[in-house]
Amino acid sequence: MAVTQTPQTAFWEGDSYFVLDQLLLPHRTTYIECRTPEDVEAAIINMNLRGAPLIGAAASAGVALYFRSPAAPPCSFDGEIAKLLATRPTAVNLRNVLEESKKIYSQNSTKSREELFKIFLDFSKRVHLRDAERNIRMGEIGADFVKKRIYKGEKLKILTHCNAGALATCGSGTALSVIRALNKQGLVGKVWVDETRPYLQGARLTAFEMLCEEIPHEIITDSTAGWLMHENEVDLIIIGADRVAANGDLANKIGSYSLSVLANFHKIPFISAMPLETFDLNIPDGRSIVIEKRSDSELLSFNGVRIAHTGCHGLHLGFDVVPAGLLFALVTENGVVSDGISAEKISRLFK
Amino acid sequence: MAVTQTPQTAFWEGDSYFVLDQLLLPHRTTYIECRTPEDVEAAIINMNLRGAPLIGAAASAGVALYFRSPAAPPCSFDGEIAKLLATRPTAVNLRNVLEESKKIYSQNSTKSREELFKIFLDFSKRVHLRDAERNIRMGEIGADFVKKRIYKGEKLKILTHCNAGALATCGSGTALSVIRALNKQGLVGKVWVDETRPYLQGARLTAFEMLCEEIPHEIITDSTAGWLMHENEVDLIIIGADRVAANGDLANKIGSYSLSVLANFHKIPFISAMPLETFDLNIPDGRSIVIEKRSDSELLSFNGVRIAHTGCHGLHLGFDVVPAGLLFALVTENGVVSDGISAEKISRLFK
Repeated sequence: MAVTQTPQTAFWEGDSYFVLDQLLLPHRTTYIECRTPEDVEAAIINMNLRGAPLIGAAASAGVALYFRSPAAPPCSFDGEIAKLLATRPTAVNLRNVLEESKKIYSQNSTKSREELFKIFLDFSKRVHLRDAERNIRMGEIGADFVKKRIYKGEKLKILTHCNAGALATCGSGTALSVIRALNKQGLVGKVWVDETRPYLQGARLTAFEMLCEEIPHEIITDSTAGWLMHENEVDLIIIGADRVAANGDLANKIGSYSLSVLANFHKIPFISAMPLETFDLNIPDGRSIVIEKRSDSELLSFNGVRIAHTGCHGLHLGFDVVPAGLLFALVTENGVVSDGISAEKISRLFK
Repeated sequence: MAVTQTPQTAFWEGDSYFVLDQLLLPHRTTYIECRTPEDVEAAIINMNLRGAPLIGAAASAGVALYFRSPAAPPCSFDGEIAKLLATRPTAVNLRNVLEESKKIYSQNSTKSREELFKIFLDFSKRVHLRDAERNIRMGEIGADFVKKRIYKGEKLKILTHCNAGALATCGSGTALSVIRALNKQGLVGKVWVDETRPYLQGARLTAFEMLCEEIPHEIITDSTAGWLMHENEVDLIIIGADRVAANGDLANKIGSYSLSVLANFHKIPFISAMPLETFDLNIPDGRSIVIEKRSDSELLSFNGVRIAHTGCHGLHLGFDVVPAGLLFALVTENGVVSDGISAEKISRLFK
């Protein structure tokens, strides 16, 4: 398989929405055609697509597809919104895009289904495009910040967790967009890729993106990260986020919390990059963030092969919460918050 | 498969040494018959058997098998010792048992091969038996210590990493022997089992042992441990060790270092249990411990199925080093060192 460029995560073609099946990556590039909201819901629930910004974008497609068939579906518009919202509990982008959709609907509810499909198709395309634009901006802003505040003249060794890349978004990614921008300036020595159990988004997706971009990288087990910090092999940690509370506490893939404690112990800057859409200003801090608990079968089996004895059980949490106090900076498309993250500083990003 | 008791890791039957193939656990209980030292070497290198004390015991069997055939093998006794020593670089038990073997040989070198086989067969059986006895003692000593110093009246939630159990030894284990002894006294609420990538010794072996012993447990990804500490779900961490330096710094399965930092941050006692054989008093501290670097294929594939893109590489370190300063206590068959671990306190264990 020739490595060229990271495949597009999702796109509209005619009346259908196509979703890259990320469960088959990096070995096969296959798209799932979504013709109904249920197709989109299944793709989110089964994690064929993942990543907070991409989940939000896919939700917009689910809403559009609700109006695709001339005949009204059995469930109401509000029912459809509720179904889409229930697909994943932690990523707030999903809720924010659905809130926007509700506003658009309330302004156009008297229109025909055909007209509404066109309106929501346009909206969905706009959601995808604006996410890609935000990626570019936060990449440049983040790279400038890192260059000024962290780079000391030697190429950076950067550690990342899970996949906060092109494959989590509609463009170049969040955390990986910063890495891409740094790499364009020749500032990246190596990227350490946490494999990210149990879904292995790091080994399967992030490493694949790094390969496509020709960025030097090595995959490690998640438990190796701390030792590399001890051995001075990590200058900087950059991750994405699934939900950021008003005070800067943020939910991200399980393991992010441990990394933040380890970074703090080793005095290594720990940065998270996300669009403003990922903020949930309604919740004061991380204690209110719902942590998704998933089936332990995803932990205890691999490719259908059971790892543990069938009598054993596991606990599979999808996320944990990084406290703002352990973060060096938050990078968004509207600027950086650093040097003591606070609700007040965060609120200024939205002005 | 009915769960009864943890299978014996290795035993002599007639002139053959039988090794439990741990790569097939927990699904199949199969033994590998070793008739030559090379059979034992292959079993250690391929990790059919693992765990510092068990590796040491198996080395004694390798030495005995050197004398099994009436015809002298092509390699010298010293050559055979060197080959066995090279099978794994980190576990010091291996070297210590081989040093003992060299002494025995030097006192008996004029004897016939037949006599030497009998001498080393007896020695090997003794090595296995004494390891099992040490397990029992360190289990009781460790449980007493935990009961006095950590137990506060509520059943303990204990986290462990890798497998420092019956399957790493010739008896009831090191860390897990302490847990077994605590459980007999009704003091164990739950054992959190780190799955322990990439070999999954936790999910495959430790969880299986806990199931056999009917000790409540749940398997987690390695990166979940820190979050459980944050959520007050961990009262105590107990691990084994592969080599302990004179000052108490110790090498153990990769991920142990991260756990020690996380335990320190959350003020959770972090204990390691090992026989005195695991100490290497020749090295002053952890900086001299050789960290085994293994093939990245063990990280990037699972059951022969490739996880990462074939163009990607990984770094697979077998071990890391926990600094003595982050340890709450060392538990041995000769007593406990705690409240500031030092070379002086450790040296007293050997008197």
